[in-house]
Amino acid sequence: MKSLKDILVDGSFSMDKEDLLCYGYDASGIDMAPAAVVWPKSTMDICKLMQFAWQNDIKVIPRGAGTGLTGGAVPVADSILLSFEKMNNIIEIDTRNLNVVVEPGVINGDLQRALGQERYFYPPDPASLNTCTIGGNVAENAGGPRALKYGVTRDYVMQIEAVLPDGKLIQTGVQTKKSVVGYDLTRLLVGSEGTLAVITKIRLKVLPMPESVITILSAFGSLEQAGKTVSRIIADGIIPATMELMDRMTLVAVNKYKNVGFPEDIEAMLLIEIDGNSRAIQADADKVANICNGFQGKVKIAEDSASRELLWEARRAVSPALYKISPTKINEDVVVPVTKVSELLTGLQGISEAHSVPIACFGHAGDGNIHVNIMTDKNDKKKYDEAEKLVRKTFKLTLDLGGSISGEHGIGLTKSKYIDMELHSVTLDIMRGIKKLFDTKNILNPGKIFPGTDVH
Amino acid sequence: MKSLKDILVDGSFSMDKEDLLCYGYDASGIDMAPAAVVWPKSTMDICKLMQFAWQNDIKVIPRGAGTGLTGGAVPVADSILLSFEKMNNIIEIDTRNLNVVVEPGVINGDLQRALGQERYFYPPDPASLNTCTIGGNVAENAGGPRALKYGVTRDYVMQIEAVLPDGKLIQTGVQTKKSVVGYDLTRLLVGSEGTLAVITKIRLKVLPMPESVITILSAFGSLEQAGKTVSRIIADGIIPATMELMDRMTLVAVNKYKNVGFPEDIEAMLLIEIDGNSRAIQADADKVANICNGFQGKVKIAEDSASRELLWEARRAVSPALYKISPTKINEDVVVPVTKVSELLTGLQGISEAHSVPIACFGHAGDGNIHVNIMTDKNDKKKYDEAEKLVRKTFKLTLDLGGSISGEHGIGLTKSKYIDMELHSVTLDIMRGIKKLFDTKNILNPGKIFPGTDVH
Repeated sequence: MKSLKDILVDGSFSMDKEDLLCYGYDASGIDMAPAAVVWPKSTMDICKLMQFAWQNDIKVIPRGAGTGLTGGAVPVADSILLSFEKMNNIIEIDTRNLNVVVEPGVINGDLQRALGQERYFYPPDPASLNTCTIGGNVAENAGGPRALKYGVTRDYVMQIEAVLPDGKLIQTGVQTKKSVVGYDLTRLLVGSEGTLAVITKIRLKVLPMPESVITILSAFGSLEQAGKTVSRIIADGIIPATMELMDRMTLVAVNKYKNVGFPEDIEAMLLIEIDGNSRAIQADADKVANICNGFQGKVKIAEDSASRELLWEARRAVSPALYKISPTKINEDVVVPVTKVSELLTGLQGISEAHSVPIACFGHAGDGNIHVNIMTDKNDKKKYDEAEKLVRKTFKLTLDLGGSISGEHGIGLTKSKYIDMELHSVTLDIMRGIKKLFDTKNILNPGKIFPGTDVH
Repeated sequence: MKSLKDILVDGSFSMDKEDLLCYGYDASGIDMAPAAVVWPKSTMDICKLMQFAWQNDIKVIPRGAGTGLTGGAVPVADSILLSFEKMNNIIEIDTRNLNVVVEPGVINGDLQRALGQERYFYPPDPASLNTCTIGGNVAENAGGPRALKYGVTRDYVMQIEAVLPDGKLIQTGVQTKKSVVGYDLTRLLVGSEGTLAVITKIRLKVLPMPESVITILSAFGSLEQAGKTVSRIIADGIIPATMELMDRMTLVAVNKYKNVGFPEDIEAMLLIEIDGNSRAIQADADKVANICNGFQGKVKIAEDSASRELLWEARRAVSPALYKISPTKINEDVVVPVTKVSELLTGLQGISEAHSVPIACFGHAGDGNIHVNIMTDKNDKKKYDEAEKLVRKTFKLTLDLGGSISGEHGIGLTKSKYIDMELHSVTLDIMRGIKKLFDTKNILNPGKIFPGTDVH
């Protein structure tokens, strides 16, 4: 693959073993070294790279920060790994038109800080926001706690510049607030997990920062009561910015990892934030506190922005913290209608007890999106096989409740064998047809999403 | 086509000349009688109809209420016109999960009234809401005044049940607030103008009704000042629910049609609504009034809900009212970034003066979406040809300002010859590929969207 040197105008690449190892994994725990790592510096670099790959039938794997939990950025053998670290410029912040233009390598948190200085914000806020990139967020249609009130990445992408597998450049969407000119290719690329085109530039909608925030913590004696509280708040016409749930195992893990001092004698904690006009949110906060009390929740209000920030640091540390109590976790990401959260949580408790496998639950309860962590040990085959059986049971329970098997993590490698539990073969055939239309040669991030195409 | 009788289980059909005439047009003014009109009663009817059409190479044209302005529902010769009048049930209103399920023939206004009784609403509110159907709204990705704050139809469609051109049934999306499981076929169908699949059932997100609304009218001495006011309000971090503009010609026309008593000695009027918590919106209303005053706007607040409703009736009557001052209007629907609204309006004024062709402008100024009405007479060929030349000039101006040629009306028949002004050939090729993937035989609403395929 010496000719890589010739095709990259400004970019750089490496075939050093240590680079290949460093870029050969993501947060799914799966790894496979690529044949080369490329750091393009421009769209032109990527056009040339894809033309080269297309002509030579070389597989290309785009990778953001590797924080994905389903193996979406894990390379295949003999592939080129395309990393966006050198394409991390915020190109334009246009608050007068409520949008920004960024390169895909921009870190979500960096964009948040740049916008924050002007009292604007970009709503999608995955827990990995200080590491993950906007390009990865777009590829996975990332969510985050604020999705409850503000929606997911899909709702904020206005325009995408992308390079097709054969090297041609396309531009989708518009820089205006609306448009109906042909099919919606923008939303087709959002959440396509890097399988259709390489995203090279993105225009995102942003919003003025809300005037104030009130942060409420409520402790519950049972998961069921916490789940019912969540559903009642929504049914009463209140839409908080976030409504996060942590179960006891999660609270214990976070205490061990961060020493936050969460109570450990409760079954569930809700972390609720209401944002908006100061006077308006006080009324909503009172209503929320009353509803929590009605389900025997003990309510506490975060006093200042420092204690608020501490709570969010703790919340964002949940995923790494869980490794403190178990060597391996099988991380699922199911979502159900909000009225079914309580049934989902008690159902999972039942599955956990019946199989004597611990399951830690946390996540975005307000939009029904629960991160289900089946705690196990990869090195204990019997234990691990038993735990893995619970994945299918979890998905079955979720789908029976009218849910979906992934709220925000995507399908990638780890869930592709389950996708037909949710999607019918006719629907999957159309999706395969779309993949083929964009990528006849199947060179761009092959083996992801679709079952039976795992090339690992 | 006698065999139609055999394939429809519950539905009915007609080949009577008067039915063929009544269903052979839409609001674009183009007409072409189909060979038959079919009123299916169920999804099963539509599956059977499409299987029949597929096997016999018969073209099928889905039609909502025919309020579309670009000919999207106009039949082709020898086609079956599929009308949804008998599939107009609101199947489920689930306010606890903030969504509803409807058949495509449900009229937007009927859904609004059903939801209003429970203090919920469905944000997309096209001016034709008392006639247009949800199925048509989804096919065209309809907007409306509230799109400024709340977004367009695309932002509210959660699930679609649809019949493919070959008669197979698909289900897209989820009944949960988020999901990343395969490609976003839901958004691909929204705005596809009935060219990919026949929509048979729709799940829509709904929202709790805002507590209060304040309606502000402001009269301006120039279009430029009105445009600048709009842009300044957004730049100051205020997002009203609506921000509608009417120019002088529009005000005169509405007065003639509805006798509303709008002032006729001004150049532009803004109709601004702010909704939300009562105390919060009062503060925003004061800021908006100040900004209007700063651009010499004369501000008036609507006193009660009756006077408010009168204003909206007047606003919704604009499109029919304009026929009072000219026998024909060429109706365009361009959209620019909100900072460019002022330039767009003065640019259009320039075009109008240079060619001595009157142009009436009104529309959703807050999201940059202006309805441009080139006033002419279809029966005066010279006059009409001159007016039609202004369409391309209008689009050129719009695109030069970073805009899009259609904000909410779609491409249909009337704009297909201009689509390549906005979309590059590579993008158009992908869209054509998607059409082919869904509809290899090109039997479903053929000749729409894509240039060079006009079968009229």
